[in-house]
Amino acid sequence: MDNLLICGRSREDFLEEIRRFHSLVAPGLIIGGFMVDWALELLSDNSEADAIVETVHCLPDAIQIFTPCTYGNGWMKVLDWDKFALSLYNKRNLQGFRIWLDLNKAKSFPNVYNWYMRLTPKKNLPLDVLLQSIFDARRSILSSCPINVTAFYEKKKKGTIKVCPACEEAYPATQGDACLACQGKGYYEPIVVKLTDATHVLSPGLLPLE
Amino acid sequence: MDNLLICGRSREDFLEEIRRFHSLVAPGLIIGGFMVDWALELLSDNSEADAIVETVHCLPDAIQIFTPCTYGNGWMKVLDWDKFALSLYNKRNLQGFRIWLDLNKAKSFPNVYNWYMRLTPKKNLPLDVLLQSIFDARRSILSSCPINVTAFYEKKKKGTIKVCPACEEAYPATQGDACLACQGKGYYEPIVVKLTDATHVLSPGLLPLE
Repeated sequence: MDNLLICGRSREDFLEEIRRFHSLVAPGLIIGGFMVDWALELLSDNSEADAIVETVHCLPDAIQIFTPCTYGNGWMKVLDWDKFALSLYNKRNLQGFRIWLDLNKAKSFPNVYNWYMRLTPKKNLPLDVLLQSIFDARRSILSSCPINVTAFYEKKKKGTIKVCPACEEAYPATQGDACLACQGKGYYEPIVVKLTDATHVLSPGLLPLE
Repeated sequence: MDNLLICGRSREDFLEEIRRFHSLVAPGLIIGGFMVDWALELLSDNSEADAIVETVHCLPDAIQIFTPCTYGNGWMKVLDWDKFALSLYNKRNLQGFRIWLDLNKAKSFPNVYNWYMRLTPKKNLPLDVLLQSIFDARRSILSSCPINVTAFYEKKKKGTIKVCPACEEAYPATQGDACLACQGKGYYEPIVVKLTDATHVLSPGLLPLE
């Protein structure tokens, strides 16, 4: 019997919540669960904790699944630094803990070290073997440090809104005389449907402009 | 009886899932639910849909609650544009739909329009009144357009990893000879505990460096 609890969940529930939210059981997210588990334990009162995550890969979902912090409620900030680390801190006094994957410790678990450093081709390290190594390691591949948070703690403010003269949508006045999309920095082009022109064929499911 | 289903959920379940994930029932997230609901309906096959969200506020959580796309699994990209719009698209052919809050339509629902444009002080517009206006409006304050996605659709690749000579953590080689934190661009300073020095007092819950 394994009585391990991670973020207050049994191993089974922990994996099931990861699968449900993230769609796959990613090794990085399992390590992330152990990181969040440790950070919550270190924080004496975590009811007001905000989060900073240092990579866009996997780790933000560990925060979103196992704490009240989400990307959309603004309590989690994500830095695109590609470092396997996260911090949870009290939003009132800005004190908290940073937890990171400690490579020197991870060397004692070669499957984990080789996976993270990409030294083993995926086909040579089956997922179940890697996951077992991560569960064997638990916190012993991690380090923690108490910190004062000095940046990225502010709530993103909404500034003055204008209506874009081109698309007639609301946008922040700081972007200039038109919104970024109408300045040509958008990520899409409308599929224009000419109903009178038989040479324009719509893909199934595509509807005319409304 | 209200038989309305939003993203396949009853109004009660829809609100409960929002409350559970986002911690509060935010008006923007309710509108976001109707946006996702419409986008999923327009996509004939949504099993392979990726998402792009045009604001960091609230809307990313509508995607994360009601689709398999999350920040951490990389299927949702977030642009910090402060536009109330999102797109869902087929990741194979990059065709999909953009849905946005249409200000011209929203004028027919003054509570929604005044809330979004910040024309009414919060105290003059109780949350339950605003939410009822949003449920009355449903899709009628939104517009949709079929699109080809032309940018931001790539999966973020992990590049070459180096070990930072200062902190000994892994970091992307593109950042230079040391990681960004060790270049002085970090967001934290360690709380150094000198156990022999009685003038350094730890806050409750703060532990020495490990």
